[in-house]
Amino acid sequence: MLRTHTCGELTISNLGQSVTLTGWVQKSRDLGGTTFIDVRDRYGITQLVLNADTDAAIREQARNLGREFVIRVTGKVLERTSKNPRIPTGDIEIEVQELEILNEAKIPPFLIEDETDGGEELRAKYRYLDLRRNPIRNNLLLRHNMAQEIRRYLSDLNFIEVETPVLIKSTPEGARDFVVPSRMNPGEFYALPQSPQTFKQLLMVSGFDRYFQIVKCFRDEDLRADRQPEFTQVDCELSFVEQEDILNIFEGLTRHLFTKVKGLDLGDFPRMQYADAMRLYGSDKPDVRFGMEFVELNDIVKGKGFSIFDNAELIVGINAKGKAGYTRKQLDELTEWLKRPQIGATGMIYMRYNTDGSLKSSVDKFYNEDELKKWAEAFGAEQGDLILILAGQTDKVRKQLNELRLEMGSRLGLRDKNKFAPLWVLDFPLLEFDEESGRWHAMHHPFTSPKPEDIALLDTDPGAVRANAYDLVINGTEIGGGSIRIHNKDLQGLMFKHLGFSKEEAQKQFGFLMDAFEFGAPPHGGIAFGFDRLCSIFAGLDSIRDVIAFPKNNSGRDVMIDSPSVIADAQMQELKIKTTV
Amino acid sequence: MLRTHTCGELTISNLGQSVTLTGWVQKSRDLGGTTFIDVRDRYGITQLVLNADTDAAIREQARNLGREFVIRVTGKVLERTSKNPRIPTGDIEIEVQELEILNEAKIPPFLIEDETDGGEELRAKYRYLDLRRNPIRNNLLLRHNMAQEIRRYLSDLNFIEVETPVLIKSTPEGARDFVVPSRMNPGEFYALPQSPQTFKQLLMVSGFDRYFQIVKCFRDEDLRADRQPEFTQVDCELSFVEQEDILNIFEGLTRHLFTKVKGLDLGDFPRMQYADAMRLYGSDKPDVRFGMEFVELNDIVKGKGFSIFDNAELIVGINAKGKAGYTRKQLDELTEWLKRPQIGATGMIYMRYNTDGSLKSSVDKFYNEDELKKWAEAFGAEQGDLILILAGQTDKVRKQLNELRLEMGSRLGLRDKNKFAPLWVLDFPLLEFDEESGRWHAMHHPFTSPKPEDIALLDTDPGAVRANAYDLVINGTEIGGGSIRIHNKDLQGLMFKHLGFSKEEAQKQFGFLMDAFEFGAPPHGGIAFGFDRLCSIFAGLDSIRDVIAFPKNNSGRDVMIDSPSVIADAQMQELKIKTTV
Repeated sequence: MLRTHTCGELTISNLGQSVTLTGWVQKSRDLGGTTFIDVRDRYGITQLVLNADTDAAIREQARNLGREFVIRVTGKVLERTSKNPRIPTGDIEIEVQELEILNEAKIPPFLIEDETDGGEELRAKYRYLDLRRNPIRNNLLLRHNMAQEIRRYLSDLNFIEVETPVLIKSTPEGARDFVVPSRMNPGEFYALPQSPQTFKQLLMVSGFDRYFQIVKCFRDEDLRADRQPEFTQVDCELSFVEQEDILNIFEGLTRHLFTKVKGLDLGDFPRMQYADAMRLYGSDKPDVRFGMEFVELNDIVKGKGFSIFDNAELIVGINAKGKAGYTRKQLDELTEWLKRPQIGATGMIYMRYNTDGSLKSSVDKFYNEDELKKWAEAFGAEQGDLILILAGQTDKVRKQLNELRLEMGSRLGLRDKNKFAPLWVLDFPLLEFDEESGRWHAMHHPFTSPKPEDIALLDTDPGAVRANAYDLVINGTEIGGGSIRIHNKDLQGLMFKHLGFSKEEAQKQFGFLMDAFEFGAPPHGGIAFGFDRLCSIFAGLDSIRDVIAFPKNNSGRDVMIDSPSVIADAQMQELKIKTTV
Repeated sequence: MLRTHTCGELTISNLGQSVTLTGWVQKSRDLGGTTFIDVRDRYGITQLVLNADTDAAIREQARNLGREFVIRVTGKVLERTSKNPRIPTGDIEIEVQELEILNEAKIPPFLIEDETDGGEELRAKYRYLDLRRNPIRNNLLLRHNMAQEIRRYLSDLNFIEVETPVLIKSTPEGARDFVVPSRMNPGEFYALPQSPQTFKQLLMVSGFDRYFQIVKCFRDEDLRADRQPEFTQVDCELSFVEQEDILNIFEGLTRHLFTKVKGLDLGDFPRMQYADAMRLYGSDKPDVRFGMEFVELNDIVKGKGFSIFDNAELIVGINAKGKAGYTRKQLDELTEWLKRPQIGATGMIYMRYNTDGSLKSSVDKFYNEDELKKWAEAFGAEQGDLILILAGQTDKVRKQLNELRLEMGSRLGLRDKNKFAPLWVLDFPLLEFDEESGRWHAMHHPFTSPKPEDIALLDTDPGAVRANAYDLVINGTEIGGGSIRIHNKDLQGLMFKHLGFSKEEAQKQFGFLMDAFEFGAPPHGGIAFGFDRLCSIFAGLDSIRDVIAFPKNNSGRDVMIDSPSVIADAQMQELKIKTTV
């Protein structure tokens, strides 16, 4: 090695040793004839010192070092006179005897410090410089540690990691596929996997018993902060299991990660029915760091002549504790916020439970104080609380109130990034109706098994059929989801029928899987975690971008390497394709 | 779990316990009113027994079980009367009390046993059944163990695994890229990486210091047994290192794998100059499980009137020990074998050192016994040996003799799959001349550094410039290769110039990397292992196919899922491409 030590390891126990360090110049300063240089590598920072005793040529060289120059120094470990207790090497400094510039550096386009002055575009273009900053590097170190822990944990439980193919087959189900023209099979295309779903099920048919893979997946969808065209899944599948086994094993994995990586014991994870999550939080991924559950008011507010409530399918509200002091202006702003097209509420009713004990609503014309008392009781409200109520069609109003609840949670400081609230959401519906195509879609995917007792409902009330499907939610983010799968060819065929596949289409797309089910398929189920999201939650980040070394922007571009790009005509000719732009 | 134990764990210590097992029916037989069933899972095989005491309905059910039925049984662990010492569960059997058929199975299209009767095509179509066979499953278990050991070893040495992107940019260097049309950027394409080369170098510029990744790579090349369109690399890069450090660390990793996985200590790995490998073995990846080194004869055979030798650039041979008994017919067959177009030799000269001490060559007309004695001395030949000699243009004849040496090594039984002979090959040439394009190509890749003392030769004798490049070879297979990289923009620019890039082309394709070199790039180098090949060597296989769960055939097809396939017109319209087939 060009060094004897890293910049993060020398302490008082190394005093007097001659050492060689390599790294980047973080900063340098002259103080009364003495030059101090901070040299940095992945492991830390060490202070170099050059004083009157140092060779004049070396001192001159040192004075000309710029930020981010790569250097190699040899010198003696001395005790510092003024120590820096904030860094592990703060007790020592290196008296420089030799100095070699390994590479020069232009002035970086932005500050390479924890807080940088670089804008998003600039940092994306020079991602390799942004990656030098501690916060980003620490995210990637965290990611590495998490991947290692996951692999160790699952391997110890007899899971084996099997690589499934990246060049697979395009299917019409689910999101849009990325495709790859095949040169050897002109006119035909591979697709990149949206998940290794069918392969992991085939591995169960093969008797692999317990499979996992930390694997890249691909979806050609429009992008946003927590979505990338390529993303990483922790993909798992087990045979001879029931739902309870899967919940236990992966709750164990998640708790293990929190213990190992964050030193937190999360305790047993609470569980909730999908139907309850929708009723109490208006979301299948409720943020349960705080309560503020929905309270339904139909029984106590209807029939008093207030037509908005009388005509509404659902009247439902939340209690924003301690916010009775909200001014009329603040409440109007909140109403406007709710009316934005992203949320689409038509209005909001409120009731202040004033600190003097009086009750005051925005619909006092229709409800007297006795009636408002019943409202307060329904919410368990106390003096100083603010009740916010929405009314309308059930699904819509729940969705809107979910947004309002999260907003009020943030305003009340209840969404602490250092607090972690996991939740299993169980018994998802098997199907959801898609207005656009006018047919039922698989809520999870077409391989999810219905609850046996609900199968009869497939013909009469498809929306009521519950699936053996579960999600793991942390702090309102879905970080994992899975199901017990269908392992019977006839049931799988029935599912495809209800999803609008003809027998021929089903056979053409998924024949290999249905055939496999005829050769001794074991009962099996699994789960997949969004690894990028999991890492971002551990890192306390809102976006997944900064747990990814080289992310793409919202147009799917890597601005650093300038990709995608046009390719040569000869390349297209070989592939027997052309562009129609 | 649907079971209390696996089929591989019950022993005499479990006697009397009531257990529940799940698995596949391996075979069943009736013996004098008693039915024996072998039930199999990933972990082993356990014998079930049903006798006169068993419930009649269950016995009837058991008699109707077919091969590969998936069953669940509950019963009592008994000691066997006739034990099977070859399996861990051979001391016990389960007296069946309950039997449930979890899934039926059609008769498999081939035998699911260690030796199968299924042809390659059939096994590929039903890969999920082929994967049930022990030899294939064991390969994938081996692969998992190797990946885990590699990750553990490198992590302990401060390497961190960083995921680099799969959707990158097409470059004209190297092999053919697979490309992916971008819907969001119409007319533009991503490419799938042939290796994460530039990204890992950027991670060094970012100060990550030690990177690795077990990662899928892609090459759209014509296929053969040891090549797949998607393959897996163990990709590594380090900063502040010299070649010696890399050799030591990765020799350590390889030795660790052999110790952990195969219980073998390979000792220190020998090293050889590229030039010596070519001279002694005619190959840059010699199989050094056996000697049979080349002996050059120019000095002792020229000038005796034999025009083939006199006109040849190189006369070189090997000693096939103990093969003097080869008949004329066998030697003629060997000559024909050499003349096949794949090898392309024009002929072969031989000399028998007979057991009676006489020397007999195929060119006795030109060389008397005294002269032949000099030949024998040159080879260190003994009575009973057979000398085989080729003559011609140096590069060609070395290549031909390499094939002959390997063939004779096989015939002499010197290429034992259970013996492992590693070798570092060092100091590869930087460039090689490509006859087709009429220009110099990078032998490794354009980022490999030349030896500083050879840089001056770039202008005068490009073929003589040696690179800081090394390969790790085991048993004649290249399993890893790498180099110390260029970390200086000017030198990188010079390389591109010598590779025939204009300044503009170089900037367009690799500008981001050359720019990065200006912001403080550390000296760095790395290596990449072909993980599929490494696993296949550990598994004693000739092909990489059976260390891959779902490989493609020689046409790049996955015959199981029938991929690649045509895609919908609507899909192409969205991507703004069309096919020109």
